Amino acid sequence: MSKRGILMIISGPSGVGKSTIADAVLSRNNGFSHVPTATTRNPRPGEKHGVDYFFLSQEEFESKIQANEFFEHIEYAGNRYGSLVSAVDASLDAGNDVLLVIDVRGAISIKKLRPDAVTVFVLPPRFSDLKARLGGRGTDDEDTVSRRVEIAKTELNYRDRYDYQVINDVVERAADDVEKIRDAERLRSFRNEFSMEE
Amino acid sequence: MSKRGILMIISGPSGVGKSTIADAVLSRNNGFSHVPTATTRNPRPGEKHGVDYFFLSQEEFESKIQANEFFEHIEYAGNRYGSLVSAVDASLDAGNDVLLVIDVRGAISIKKLRPDAVTVFVLPPRFSDLKARLGGRGTDDEDTVSRRVEIAKTELNYRDRYDYQVINDVVERAADDVEKIRDAERLRSFRNEFSMEE
Repeated sequence: MSKRGILMIISGPSGVGKSTIADAVLSRNNGFSHVPTATTRNPRPGEKHGVDYFFLSQEEFESKIQANEFFEHIEYAGNRYGSLVSAVDASLDAGNDVLLVIDVRGAISIKKLRPDAVTVFVLPPRFSDLKARLGGRGTDDEDTVSRRVEIAKTELNYRDRYDYQVINDVVERAADDVEKIRDAERLRSFRNEFSMEE
Repeated sequence: MSKRGILMIISGPSGVGKSTIADAVLSRNNGFSHVPTATTRNPRPGEKHGVDYFFLSQEEFESKIQANEFFEHIEYAGNRYGSLVSAVDASLDAGNDVLLVIDVRGAISIKKLRPDAVTVFVLPPRFSDLKARLGGRGTDDEDTVSRRVEIAKTELNYRDRYDYQVINDVVERAADDVEKIRDAERLRSFRNEFSMEE
């Protein structure tokens, strides 16, 4: 497999289940390779550098931001997370397909940087399903929930800027869709080179 | 199935096996529907108008050309053949996917007319395989064969103007590729409409 792999970005509103779908795709033996994320959080017992995550100090992470070494980076619960361009490219060059879970705006900026990346937006079966999920277990106050719903609406408005849309009705079925998209994308003319020599 | 179907055009050089692949796809129960071609040739025993072909007189065929009612039309062995826009659209509107086998230039003009059509170029595994097939059983003179090879080369030069490229190594495997492309195309953002209402 010397042909360069396909970079797929999976995105969608909070609560739609994009990470669950990505985990389902990556758990299959199907040509997709897991590229660890860089993070400043501490390793949990058993986690290995370069396998589960690239564990970086705040300073290392900051200097990589300055050097433009991330596709994107976010802060979550006081820790930073980012996808390293070098790690992704090494995996693509080895012929693996790479699936990144990225938030809605991050995915659109990666697509600008890498027009050959394939962007997939995950949708709920119905908007009401997402609203129900964002409501959680009823322990959050109304304001918090309605703020989440407003953010989800804004995020959903980006859906048509993605190449594909996958509905998360059943996780394994949605994972099948992601695989089908990858299979078809491998057949795109611009990813293929036919030799007239032989 | 009220959603409009997908128009797929399968094309490629003479002798590459595009019709065989299309027949394999259409023989499966997979959402593709066979839309009969219009022709001026006489029905063979058992052939039914509107099922196998639309049998037209020379005058009827000619008037439909004038009225721009064909996607494309060709003459072969003294008979005319053409794909009727109305028949294709009726099938698409009923939610069927439609697969048309069209020659290389014809496919490119249909894509201009219908940018949402999906164009697939069929390639031989190697150029030498196609040359061998065009040589036939060795009963044709060298000039005839080398003329065919030159035409095939010219046709192959259009391959990058197609959306996808499928290699005809094994017919059923190539037919699988065509189905995968259709499955992924169904997930394209521009073919989907998510409602924020519910």
